[in-house]
Amino acid sequence: MTLLDSDATILLLAPPAAGQPAATIDTPALVLDLDAFERNLAQMQQAADKAGVQLRPHAKAHKCPDIALAQIARGAAGICCQKVSEALPFVQAGVRDIHISNEIAGQAKAALLARMALDARISVCVDDARQVATLATAAAQAGSHIGVFVEIDVGQGRCGVADAPAALRLVEAIRAHAQLEFRGLQAYHGGIQHVRDYAARRQAAADAAARTAAIVAALAEAGVACATVTGGGSGSVEFDLASGVYTEIQPGSYIFMDADYGRNDYSGTLRFEHSLFIATAVMSVAAATRPAPRVVLDAGLKSMAVDSGLPLVWDGDGPSRTVAYVAANDEHGILEPLPGGNGADLPGLGAQVLLVPGHCDPTLNLYDEIVGVRKGLVSLVWPVAARGLSR
Amino acid sequence: MTLLDSDATILLLAPPAAGQPAATIDTPALVLDLDAFERNLAQMQQAADKAGVQLRPHAKAHKCPDIALAQIARGAAGICCQKVSEALPFVQAGVRDIHISNEIAGQAKAALLARMALDARISVCVDDARQVATLATAAAQAGSHIGVFVEIDVGQGRCGVADAPAALRLVEAIRAHAQLEFRGLQAYHGGIQHVRDYAARRQAAADAAARTAAIVAALAEAGVACATVTGGGSGSVEFDLASGVYTEIQPGSYIFMDADYGRNDYSGTLRFEHSLFIATAVMSVAAATRPAPRVVLDAGLKSMAVDSGLPLVWDGDGPSRTVAYVAANDEHGILEPLPGGNGADLPGLGAQVLLVPGHCDPTLNLYDEIVGVRKGLVSLVWPVAARGLSR
Repeated sequence: MTLLDSDATILLLAPPAAGQPAATIDTPALVLDLDAFERNLAQMQQAADKAGVQLRPHAKAHKCPDIALAQIARGAAGICCQKVSEALPFVQAGVRDIHISNEIAGQAKAALLARMALDARISVCVDDARQVATLATAAAQAGSHIGVFVEIDVGQGRCGVADAPAALRLVEAIRAHAQLEFRGLQAYHGGIQHVRDYAARRQAAADAAARTAAIVAALAEAGVACATVTGGGSGSVEFDLASGVYTEIQPGSYIFMDADYGRNDYSGTLRFEHSLFIATAVMSVAAATRPAPRVVLDAGLKSMAVDSGLPLVWDGDGPSRTVAYVAANDEHGILEPLPGGNGADLPGLGAQVLLVPGHCDPTLNLYDEIVGVRKGLVSLVWPVAARGLSR
Repeated sequence: MTLLDSDATILLLAPPAAGQPAATIDTPALVLDLDAFERNLAQMQQAADKAGVQLRPHAKAHKCPDIALAQIARGAAGICCQKVSEALPFVQAGVRDIHISNEIAGQAKAALLARMALDARISVCVDDARQVATLATAAAQAGSHIGVFVEIDVGQGRCGVADAPAALRLVEAIRAHAQLEFRGLQAYHGGIQHVRDYAARRQAAADAAARTAAIVAALAEAGVACATVTGGGSGSVEFDLASGVYTEIQPGSYIFMDADYGRNDYSGTLRFEHSLFIATAVMSVAAATRPAPRVVLDAGLKSMAVDSGLPLVWDGDGPSRTVAYVAANDEHGILEPLPGGNGADLPGLGAQVLLVPGHCDPTLNLYDEIVGVRKGLVSLVWPVAARGLSR
């Protein structure tokens, strides 16, 4: 074999093998604790079932068809995607019910969506009559039917119409096209998810639910029934399930629980576990014995998203009590002792160090595979098939 | 064709076609202004030639073999990579001289490096005798020769030994192995690159060069010649070229000039242009007429790195004087009028908006292709073949 063979990259960069000790995984790698992951899956499904609310997990968090199929096998109604192209690998993997929880811009995306609607039950959001017209044209050309949700703004000030009259106008626009089907409302408030204080988060979720309920009621008064009211995320889902307003929830991050979500106060009934880790290795200890001791990890900005803070160092049972990841360069991470500690606390050259990523969604988008681990051994490798599909 | 065909993703997500108007590129997409890019290439090569210093551009900025070959065609000696796996697509594309400007952790990486050294002239950095031993074993097993640089810490406090005695010990360790070749010193200080003030940056570069010169002199006194002294980045290269210390420079970002590098004061002779843009589209204008007007772009954290700040909005000739990108969510970007402006300044639904990314290296790492544009038309599509290769 020469490197010039087309398969050389694949051979030389082979993924970890089943049965390999997790401690020997080449780094950086995205590692999933399958036991914790499965407990997270079960807990959310049970909570949704108990509330009589449909669970439609968000695949933008994982971009992995194997995970979507695991969610559906446990009772999920289907999945959400955030982009049209993101949905393609899921359709190809056999997911047959996908909601694009977002507006889309342009004919190319509408055409792709309409094409997918021949193979799966597909829906999408609108907040402008021109989007409705574009979808109708694409569906007519493809000969497919597309479900349409009117998105309402429940306080985030991002996408979505502001009030019931605007929503009603869009419902009428949708109903003017035989190949579009009005399915209900989407009401999502991203900012609420990360309100740290439990009571404040509950109040914010209650405010959003009240705004949603008012628009549902106004539409009902105008003779428009909302078969589905969809929304909610991993931070608000406990309140959304109890609200009586949402018929469907869209949480994504609960399966992984990143460091940012971990900073929320969970005083309620739902407690998800960190299941996703970045396996890194110490690549330099040259500065370990200097006055400001540190070692360098082989994972930086190309191996993790830092928009929601730096990763936590994980000691196997919880956050490290001795060292912290204090800075991310492009391909380097700086590990230093916590205040009061010293260089003796730092791991040695070549040591594997596990990190809990600050923000799971954009971190997943950096990796081509997830290495599933159980009882200290590699169990499986799942492709992140929708990585990079942002159109 | 059904979506279940294995090639459907490729067909449905076909890249832009040559000759297509750039304004119709499906979004988000990474767009390269080829004229500006080629002026940047030429300017750096001319500056290096004039100084009699070897140019070895850093491929971690672009991860694209086509760009590496364009740099080499203009006179570059080879390229730098920051990870072993990153180098593989470059070797496969015909790049025959690659320096891994970094230490590496573990036998798997050393084995891959040694294997690559059968097909290309390969070098790597060390700052610990154990790294030398691992490289020697791998080279012996592969039957290859590996060039080795001793990295010295010139103030960043990251990788690299602190002084001449430590460097000398490593030179001796390298020379003990017939399959390793001591090639010289690497001296790089990442922090200097982003010092905004021109005079302060010049002083910081001078301090780093002085530390380097002192160690070169001490090694010479001990009878060790440093054939190559390599270092420098896009922010310091003007000073590094004039220093008389460096025989080789490693700039990467100069080809693109991201928004963060654009905030440096360039009072000297080198002026690079923004050539890299993210093409986005307005996907929602539902909030455009509210008291705090805004529109939503279809590009957020999965389409750009924000570690070094948010992207600039580009109006074709320079930064927009009317609107700003003020917040990045996972798949949404918020565009608002600049202070004093109003909603009338905002682009309409479906409009294409160009952004200058805040930080080019980790932004490139999110895309599978670069769309080259000339005179308003798509000219070519280059694969980002090393995207995600972080091991």
